[in-house]
Amino acid sequence: MARWQPDAPGRLAAAALDLFEERGYENTTVIEIAERAGLTKSTFFRYFPDKREVLFDRGTVTGVLVEGIASAPPTAGPLDVVAEALDALGRTFFTAERREYSGRRQAVLNANTELREREALKRIDLTASMIEALNRRGLPLLTARVAAQLGTLVWEIAYDRWIDTGNSEDFGPLARQALAEVRAAGALRQGPSSGHIGPDDDSIQTDSPG
Amino acid sequence: MARWQPDAPGRLAAAALDLFEERGYENTTVIEIAERAGLTKSTFFRYFPDKREVLFDRGTVTGVLVEGIASAPPTAGPLDVVAEALDALGRTFFTAERREYSGRRQAVLNANTELREREALKRIDLTASMIEALNRRGLPLLTARVAAQLGTLVWEIAYDRWIDTGNSEDFGPLARQALAEVRAAGALRQGPSSGHIGPDDDSIQTDSPG
Repeated sequence: MARWQPDAPGRLAAAALDLFEERGYENTTVIEIAERAGLTKSTFFRYFPDKREVLFDRGTVTGVLVEGIASAPPTAGPLDVVAEALDALGRTFFTAERREYSGRRQAVLNANTELREREALKRIDLTASMIEALNRRGLPLLTARVAAQLGTLVWEIAYDRWIDTGNSEDFGPLARQALAEVRAAGALRQGPSSGHIGPDDDSIQTDSPG
Repeated sequence: MARWQPDAPGRLAAAALDLFEERGYENTTVIEIAERAGLTKSTFFRYFPDKREVLFDRGTVTGVLVEGIASAPPTAGPLDVVAEALDALGRTFFTAERREYSGRRQAVLNANTELREREALKRIDLTASMIEALNRRGLPLLTARVAAQLGTLVWEIAYDRWIDTGNSEDFGPLARQALAEVRAAGALRQGPSSGHIGPDDDSIQTDSPG
């Protein structure tokens, strides 16, 4: 069992994770998940529409990100706004207590195409929410889309490092580090006549101005 | 029926699209799709593992992109390499004859969560192939990831415009235009203390150097 103390949907998710690891996603039923969690099938369906949904967060991550984007300092640049939001996510959701569960969950997801598909669509919907929140701050839509797209990449890099068992750093600092790397990579020039992707080196700002 | 002349999998896709439009994805069976195409159920399963797969290309898009990335001029910058690949896609796959089918297909996909999920995962796998191909050109992995991430955004913007019935421009030029806009958006500064996302305006190169 995960060490973090979960509520009913959290207990269902922890039970599902145990069972998916033990016997595989395909060979686990909703009834078995509910039983393992000490709950009923109807309780399961009060929280989740189907078995595939049990390992997915019910809007918390989106809410924290959207709120983090809205409350970032007014002077913050597009990517710094995203970094503030990822910091908030690290403080409230991707906490140290959750790390082990998150790593196990990701391994189960990676092993199953049905779960990977659902995760892929969730990510698209999440990116859309970030774009909307950035746009509401007054950023032009296209700038919001670029920032959200790069922010998603920053997130992926930080997340992979965060769930790595050899790593003990918090999610927020890992996201800041990944952001700096993405900025530097975007600035890299390849050939003499090539356009580069990102800002010039001397304009890279890795620290939030807020 | 679509105007372009399809082979067996193409006929199955066209028949499926007609049926999904007429009666909905959920209410259409594989047998009905095969019958509408004048083929058998076993022929269907020779080409597609399940009903969900029938509207998805079997690797052609990935192949064209990977080949386009590999054969771009050696001096091309990361995003120009992606633009070359999108140009190649416009010449060979997203052709004028295919535009109407693509627009109808996208509308069916957008209306169904199962299909959206599969599309989302295909996109992730496609981005992974682009990253690999960029990396093989000698680009550092992180630069390849940034270029592929922004290239995906360029593609999305160009594709939405291309399937728009009010538009008659070819996919390649639309991709070039979208790339220029993404570059300009990335360069936009928001506040006095903010880092910007992309290159400075005077360093933006919208034309391929090759």
